This record gives sequence, structure tokens and C-alpha cells, in this order.
Amino acid sequence: AHIVTLPGDGVGPEVTAAAVSVLDAVAAHFDHHFHFEEHQIGGCAIDATGEPLPAASLEACKAADAVLLGAVGGPKWSDPNAPVRPEQGLLALRAALGVYANLRPLQVHEALAELSPLKNEKLKNVDVLFVRELTGGAYFGAKTRTIDTATDECKYTVAEVERVVRRAFQLARERRKHVTSVDKANVLETSRLWRSTVTRVAAEFPDVKLEHQLVDSMAMLLLTQPGRYDVVVTENLFGDILTDEAAALAGSLGLLPSASLGEGKGGLYEPIHGSAPDIAGQGVANPLGAILSAAMLLRHSLGLEQEAAAIEAAVADVIEHGPHTRDIGGKAGTKEVLDAVLVALD
Amino acid sequence: AHIVTLPGDGVGPEVTAAAVSVLDAVAAHFDHHFHFEEHQIGGCAIDATGEPLPAASLEACKAADAVLLGAVGGPKWSDPNAPVRPEQGLLALRAALGVYANLRPLQVHEALAELSPLKNEKLKNVDVLFVRELTGGAYFGAKTRTIDTATDECKYTVAEVERVVRRAFQLARERRKHVTSVDKANVLETSRLWRSTVTRVAAEFPDVKLEHQLVDSMAMLLLTQPGRYDVVVTENLFGDILTDEAAALAGSLGLLPSASLGEGKGGLYEPIHGSAPDIAGQGVANPLGAILSAAMLLRHSLGLEQEAAAIEAAVADVIEHGPHTRDIGGKAGTKEVLDAVLVALD
Ligand SMILES: CC(C)[C@H](C(=O)O)[C@@H](O)C(=O)O
Ligand SMILES: CC(C)[C@H](C(=O)O)[C@@H](O)C(=O)O
Repeated sequence: AHIVTLPGDGVGPEVTAAAVSVLDAVAAHFDHHFHFEEHQIGGCAIDATGEPLPAASLEACKAADAVLLGAVGGPKWSDPNAPVRPEQGLLALRAALGVYANLRPLQVHEALAELSPLKNEKLKNVDVLFVRELTGGAYFGAKTRTIDTATDECKYTVAEVERVVRRAFQLARERRKHVTSVDKANVLETSRLWRSTVTRVAAEFPDVKLEHQLVDSMAMLLLTQPGRYDVVVTENLFGDILTDEAAALAGSLGLLPSASLGEGKGGLYEPIHGSAPDIAGQGVANPLGAILSAAMLLRHSLGLEQEAAAIEAAVADVIEHGPHTRDIGGKAGTKEVLDAVLVALD
Repeated sequence: AHIVTLPGDGVGPEVTAAAVSVLDAVAAHFDHHFHFEEHQIGGCAIDATGEPLPAASLEACKAADAVLLGAVGGPKWSDPNAPVRPEQGLLALRAALGVYANLRPLQVHEALAELSPLKNEKLKNVDVLFVRELTGGAYFGAKTRTIDTATDECKYTVAEVERVVRRAFQLARERRKHVTSVDKANVLETSRLWRSTVTRVAAEFPDVKLEHQLVDSMAMLLLTQPGRYDVVVTENLFGDILTDEAAALAGSLGLLPSASLGEGKGGLYEPIHGSAPDIAGQGVANPLGAILSAAMLLRHSLGLEQEAAAIEAAVADVIEHGPHTRDIGGKAGTKEVLDAVLVALD
């Protein structure tokens, strides 16, 4: 299989390298061959080429079986009014690859419950899979700006909603068969289209239970009843906010992975943490989010379920017994944690 | 002073009646005269007149010194595709009154820390004043709908941002002199206008510290470091989501008030809880959110700071010593809690 890596900025290169080591170990162990090709994205790409997503990077990603990304951005490129910005590379890549479904699983490990801001009793049985629409909505709508006015258009078509919602229902079938769709149908027209489309798609899945929630209520329910949710599907911007809120429950962003999927097998995999410029280059970043993203890559793009599960079991073992990086209360560096995962894999 | 009450639907009438009793007691005690005039809004108005905000209600609100609202909505009127919906009355009223700044104070009482989903140590020193822009953004932008497409336009002008942000800075001056402005400037054009306007307004307040946060990060920071924030200002939809998320920290929505202010003295005051149809008419709704909203009314629309503080002290007393309604772990009814507030006021 042909995998493009986009280490990006900040801690991106460190955690991506760790994930690649784990994939190499899996390849050796299960007798696969993974070919890696590294490209630039984000701030480093701007510095090198003037563009956040150079054509060579994009072409390589399109041709690959899967893409593994580290993180983009940093203080050097953080002016939101700059004409060229690192996130533009990420947004352009998501659009070009057509990865409309962003999967963000959230589980709270008992060993880390102390790190969560939530009371421990709230964290029992938290096992949510967020499915965020990733290539539509206000992120990609028309924008205008004059000296004294700005607009963003949020637009959704029925087809855009159908495909991501159908994916959510399919995923729910493999889980606890419960979908919560989040919108703001009491105010937004796009949400009313969203809600009626969801209700129609749900009829194709009579074995899956559907529930609608308003985004403001959901922001509350994720705190008061997080154990109640199975698959949560929502539009791009609501998903951005709710998945970050939910991520706080895990105690650290450092261990949360994501997968962005389109119609084909190809996909984009990245830890949900950012480039963490404050600790970049120090060898202390938590590699587990990137490693778990690599597991999702094996599962969703390469169809290697057993191998994915092996990585997840190894990571669970390290979470339970350590070593832990600083973000989850330990003192270990990236390398020590990686080595522990490799040992657990063996 | 002339106060219009809009009890609305569900528990609205019960909690509004309690707040009016408290205002009557304050009037007697401090020798003021408050004249109350009741009007319809929401579902009950739709049933009576076919409109969620009848002209008579709107005219009365415009002429009043302040408006005290209960809640709108309920299962009977909950179809988001219905042509006439209760929330439309609320949105139309906000727009017509020009109440662009929605103030939502959040404090977490030690006596209720057990009810919060957050660990107790996170709740120390939580004292946030949210200032949500209330008459612009996607709530009021152009909407389109065809059989297979829907759009919502989010629009902001510099003037709209300036006035609400200036209000936030003024309020911060009376508090801990720290403003956090929340946007999504790495993606949205309206957020880039928002951010540059905030930065410019901040220069008028050199004694107040300004911090920018992205909305996704803020959704996380409200959980990991809630004690760090003083005044948080943001646009309409982000404010809707973040204030509900933050409200969950208090343990119950039942005791949170809000004030919506425009240029003049008039204002719209309402508890942040909804119509709670499941408990409507049973005499068990928590009246404290409505009573604290009445205190905000005295402060912001009538300039009666001492009277407002007296109500707040009485409510704090009841929160500390009980009686408590069910939502905050007690068994008392609305009337018992009201009576306790009246006794504490005396
Ligand atoms: C970097 C940014 C554009 C991005 C987003 O908003 O989608 C990030 O927050 C994410 O959630 O992946
Ligand atoms: C009822 C609804 C339209 C309203 C809003 O979204 O503004 C409510 O959620 C609120 O926050 O006051």
C-alpha cells in the first residue's frame, strides 16, 4: 500500500514519525508492505513554496491509498488576515480528496479519568463516535468582505447531507445502533434541510434508533449525559465545536485520532491535537493520537481490521500501564511511549 | 416604572409570576411603584391569534421600560418545518427591541457544586459574564430553500460588532478587566471582521486585557479552565452554543438569568431555561432563574442597583440554605422557594 505522510508543523513531524514506526512494525509482523512518501503541508510548505498545499503534495495525496497528517500551523503563520495561511492547506486537501465524513471516536480510559474535568461517575461508558460533515457548510461557502461588512454563506445540498448521514447510520449498525443528529432547525434553513434529510435517510435503517438534538442542547448534554450517545452526526461547524468540547472529556487531546473518509478507499488520517508549538522539537509530544490515527487508516483505507485492532490493543495497554507523556500526567518522552507501544505490539 | 410581562409557554407563567411577586416585594420595601402589563408570546400567542408575536404584544414591549419573559415553545408547536413557530416570536422581539447584547452571568455556587458535571476543583472561582451578540449573524441573515438546497447567510457589519464589543469592555471594567473574544477567524470572513474590530475597540480600553480564542478551543477551555474567564464576548450562534455549554457547569439551568440590552434603557429579561413542558403546571419549576432575571432588570433597565443586589443576596441565601426545587436536588415547589426568597428579602 502506498501511504503519503504530511508531517506538517510543530509536533507534527515527531508524532507522524512515531506513527510510521508503528506501521512499519505492523507491516513486518503481519507481512505487509507499506510504501511511505513524505510531502509538505501548512506553514512549512508556505515557507518552502509560498503555498500551504503545493501541487506536488496534492497530487501525491490524490494518488495515495491513504494520507497520514501530523498538524498544521504555528505562531509564525497565525495572523488570520494573512493572505496565505496554513489551515488553507488542510481545508483545500479535505475538499480535493472529497473526504466528507470526519470520524472522531471518543472513549475515556479509566486510567485517565482523573485527568478529565468531568466527575468520574459521568465518564462511565463514554464511547461516542462523532461523524462530522467535513467538506460543506460555512467552511466552504461564498465569503464576501468590504470595508465595513463581511458575510459567510452556509450552504448544504440534500446529496451532501445524505451521504454523510448514511455513513453515520452504517457505522451505527456496527455499534450500539443509535444515531443522534445535531442541528439548529429552530433557526437555520440549512438545519431544517438537514433534519428532514436525516429523517428520510433513517427510514433506510429501521434497526437504528434516531434522535434529533439542537446544537445548544447538545453542548449541554455532552456534559450532563455523555454516556448516552453512540454515533453523533452533524454539520461541519457544529462538528468542529462539539468534537473539541467532547475531546476535553478525555483528559488530553493528545490521544484522540480522526479519520476523514470519502467515497473511495483513500482517506485522510490525523490526530485531533494541533501543532503544539510550545513543545515542538522537544521529543515530549504524545504520539498516541497519531498512532491511533494510523490504526484507523489500516481499518478504513486498507481494510486491515486485525492489524488496526492490534495497534489499538497495544495503545490501550500503554495507556493503562504507562509510560505516559506529560499531557496525561507522566514524564516520558515521545520515544519511550513509542517503544512501549512497539513492545506491546509484539 | 412600566414593566411588560410575557409569561409565554410551559413553566413560563409559573416562574414569571414568582418573579413579579419578588418585584412587588421590592417595590413595597424600597417604596417604588412598578406597573405590570401582561401580554402573549410564543405558542400560546399562536393558539390565540395565529401569530407568535401579536402586534399588541410588540407595541406594549416597545413602550415599556423593561420586558420580563418566561419561556416559549413546547411539543405542540415543535415542528421545525411549521410555517409559524414560537421561537419566531422571540427572535422578532429581540430584533424589534434592538437588544443586541445578551448578558448571561455564570457563577457556580459551592452549595451546588455536587450537581455540576465538573469536578469540584474545576469550579473554584468560576465567575463568567457572557456577552452574546443577539440581533445579527446567521439568525437574521438571508435564507434560501429549494427542493435540494438550503442556505443561511451569516452577516456582520463593523458597527454591529463595535457596539456589542464596546458593551463587553465596559462591563469588564466593572469586573476583573479581562475580555475574551471568541471567533473562528481561521475559517470565517465574519470572524476576521469580528477579530479586527475587537482589536480596534480594545484600544479604547487600555486598562482591560484582551484575549482572542477560536470557538473550538473555547468549547474545550470552558471545561478545562473555566475559572480563567471574566467577560466572554462572541457572535450570536457561537454564543448560543457556548452559553448553554457553560450553563451545564452550574448544575442546573433553573437558576441562570439573562438580560438583553440595546441602546436605550429598555431591555428584555428571561431565565435561560426553556418551557420545560414535562413539569409545566405542576408548581415545581425553579423560579430562581426568573427571579434573578428580575434583579438584572432592576439593575440594567431601572438603574436600581441596591434593589438588584438585595434580590441576589436573598437568592444566594436560598441557594445556600434551601429550600431547593427538584432540579437542584431538593423537594420543594415553586411557591416554597418563592416564599423563602421573600422572607430572605425582608
Ligand atoms: C485548523 C482548522 C481549520 C480545523 C477546522 O476547523 O476544521 C481544526 O480545528 C479541525 O477541527 O480539524
Ligand atoms: C429558542 C432559541 C431560538 C433561542 C436561541 O437560539 O437564541 C434559545 O436557544 C436561546 O439561547 O435563547
